Amino acid sequence: MDVLFKDITIVTMNPLEPVLEHAYLGVTGDKITYVDTKAPEEEARKTICGKEKVLIPGLVNAHTHIAMTALRGYADDQTLTSWLFDSIIPAESRLTDEIVYRCARLGILEAIASGTTAICDMYFSAPEIARAASELGIRAHVGNVPLETGEGFNLEDGSISETYELLRSFSEDPLITVFTGVHAVHNSNPSVWAWVNNMADTYQLPFSMHMAETAEDVESSLRKFGKTPAAALAEAGLFRYPAVAAHCVHLTDEDIAIMKEYGVTAASCPVSNLKLASGVAPLYKLKEAGVNIALGTDGVASNNNLDMFEEMKLSVLLQKNLTGNAAALSAYDALYFATVGGSVALGHGDTCGRLLPGLDADIVMLDFTAPHLHPCYNVISNVVYAAHGSDVELTMVRGRILYENRQFVRADLQKEIAEAEALAVPVIRG
Amino acid sequence: MDVLFKDITIVTMNPLEPVLEHAYLGVTGDKITYVDTKAPEEEARKTICGKEKVLIPGLVNAHTHIAMTALRGYADDQTLTSWLFDSIIPAESRLTDEIVYRCARLGILEAIASGTTAICDMYFSAPEIARAASELGIRAHVGNVPLETGEGFNLEDGSISETYELLRSFSEDPLITVFTGVHAVHNSNPSVWAWVNNMADTYQLPFSMHMAETAEDVESSLRKFGKTPAAALAEAGLFRYPAVAAHCVHLTDEDIAIMKEYGVTAASCPVSNLKLASGVAPLYKLKEAGVNIALGTDGVASNNNLDMFEEMKLSVLLQKNLTGNAAALSAYDALYFATVGGSVALGHGDTCGRLLPGLDADIVMLDFTAPHLHPCYNVISNVVYAAHGSDVELTMVRGRILYENRQFVRADLQKEIAEAEALAVPVIRG
Repeated sequence: MDVLFKDITIVTMNPLEPVLEHAYLGVTGDKITYVDTKAPEEEARKTICGKEKVLIPGLVNAHTHIAMTALRGYADDQTLTSWLFDSIIPAESRLTDEIVYRCARLGILEAIASGTTAICDMYFSAPEIARAASELGIRAHVGNVPLETGEGFNLEDGSISETYELLRSFSEDPLITVFTGVHAVHNSNPSVWAWVNNMADTYQLPFSMHMAETAEDVESSLRKFGKTPAAALAEAGLFRYPAVAAHCVHLTDEDIAIMKEYGVTAASCPVSNLKLASGVAPLYKLKEAGVNIALGTDGVASNNNLDMFEEMKLSVLLQKNLTGNAAALSAYDALYFATVGGSVALGHGDTCGRLLPGLDADIVMLDFTAPHLHPCYNVISNVVYAAHGSDVELTMVRGRILYENRQFVRADLQKEIAEAEALAVPVIRG
Repeated sequence: MDVLFKDITIVTMNPLEPVLEHAYLGVTGDKITYVDTKAPEEEARKTICGKEKVLIPGLVNAHTHIAMTALRGYADDQTLTSWLFDSIIPAESRLTDEIVYRCARLGILEAIASGTTAICDMYFSAPEIARAASELGIRAHVGNVPLETGEGFNLEDGSISETYELLRSFSEDPLITVFTGVHAVHNSNPSVWAWVNNMADTYQLPFSMHMAETAEDVESSLRKFGKTPAAALAEAGLFRYPAVAAHCVHLTDEDIAIMKEYGVTAASCPVSNLKLASGVAPLYKLKEAGVNIALGTDGVASNNNLDMFEEMKLSVLLQKNLTGNAAALSAYDALYFATVGGSVALGHGDTCGRLLPGLDADIVMLDFTAPHLHPCYNVISNVVYAAHGSDVELTMVRGRILYENRQFVRADLQKEIAEAEALAVPVIRG
């Protein structure tokens, strides 16, 4: 046994026994090999004292644009149109591969420090993001997808070459998976879909896309294709393989039925949806229909951090208010979305998301000594409603400790910040 | 000069120059005596290096029940009725003065550690809360108010004796101010108002109350008195002195006009209002009408922490979504509500809320070294949208440092937690 967490509270997310107190969790190689309230007989090479600590499964950020860390707080409190067209897109057009790489590293460090063990990232310069993730040891589901800007789509589109490069460079990397897809229905068309379908069939790739983020996205889809985004994507074939549909704010009951039929995950981004005034996704209806739900931060430009604890808390609080029922969805639901739901979304449903023997060791240890975590009548309630990312003390992905005692094991944070800022800030400021 | 913060970023909240970079702030006694981008000539007894640090005015939690820290996560995810009548009220009926005191201390330590320098607290055993605040060095605006439970109101009501005791014991304490008021319109009546008015006139006391928290509160007021809560309270005389009206979710335009006319503060509690499915207060309308706005956490039983950074972020994000306009309210507005607005609410409008020479030294220093605070194009945006309570490194009230290097100067946190839990948890569990 390589690592043993001793006498610790374990949130297993095993429905039969979701919380174990004074328990033991052992890791061997990249797997969890022991979970019990009895101490194991086997010795461990490293033991970690669990007094006042809580283990939870690693959090999955199921929709982000991690390199947008470069743009944190760059253009806040503008109307959506002004934010996007006057600030974000012009700034993004100045980003280089090197800036994307450096700012992806910075974003990934933030994610690791706040308990995230896997991200689903959609952005240009996607191979740089995969490289950053692989080097830093976080799981990443990565893709660049075509964006129809009105100038037509052709085989010179960067998303094509980047998808080939991702497949070439990372297909053997156990941390990296590759997806294809579209940016959204309103900025794609049948020639884009044909390419995406061909790519998916050739390489057996899953899909990801933005879907029904705004009322305008739905209106545009209805105008162009006579169908809602979900119906258009289903008909275009983009749900034939596992799909992560980000946002899912404006859904009809038929859309929800389509998502259930095709096994589409709704990756909800509650903070971003409020900040950009997009609305509140009907998670209570999606859950009732049996649709898999995951959570994401979106890019920090519309958040402005990568703290999944904020998304967990807000996701269920908004549903209580939306339904007028304070019992609608629970802290357990929120943690389920961020762990099991996220793992299912990224194709790791059988191997991640819970703390059980035989599963991959994607584990987060929280420090429960801070005053905001006392008293503790219900550990899941304190994790979801009272904790935040800074309560994370240790993050492990596939058995490797990336962050311990609130320090990065394999990165010099202050150097990373200085390098990313030196490169990005003058370019963003223009 | 007693303390000098050197070469630091200062969020002054002075509208002419809200942010100073590489600046100096000096404290002498309980006052800020120096703010400039030039170093002072005078020597200081203690200097604090400002590299990667940010000073903001102390945050004001304008509506809380701090002793409800005892009930953190005790009864989550229930319907409002079940939560209140089956769980919270029975548990509260078992609380003793000693439990209130110990759990108020624990809550105050949490508040101090997350940058709060003043609270407005409404609860029974109010003298215990004032004692805890005074001992720990935080400002507190304290009151117990009558609650008409249907059994009639008489001079034996505990709120009366407690108000006298507060006035007797704390009228000379510069940290403590005392208010009177009612719990809400729906659970008060003319005999309660007569007593409250008499108390206010005799001792020149300000008011506080819950107002229009739920649709039911408004319906009940209309049924009982033929008026909205704001109109009923105004007519009852409870706005004749400065008043802090908590929640203010369900307001008519006439209610907002009444609040403006009488100078009533709206103390909005956005997290609690979502968690109990009460709704979203129309802060954008209140701001437009010129009503003073402050923010509060409410009790942790409906939150579940005392982190004002969550309230700041959520307060303006919800307004963006409510209005469908991503430019509605800004990070600056949120910080204004939590500092200037809160200070005005508590009667400290002339002496607190900004970092300017001559004002009281209620100051919070944030550590900006964490990855989630980089890059920083706009410091107020990073404070409101990216930071959280754990980024607080130092908290000072009236010139006294209560928390430094993330440690309490005058309290043993682990001992306080152990004592509070040993006393409260068995009693709450029943």
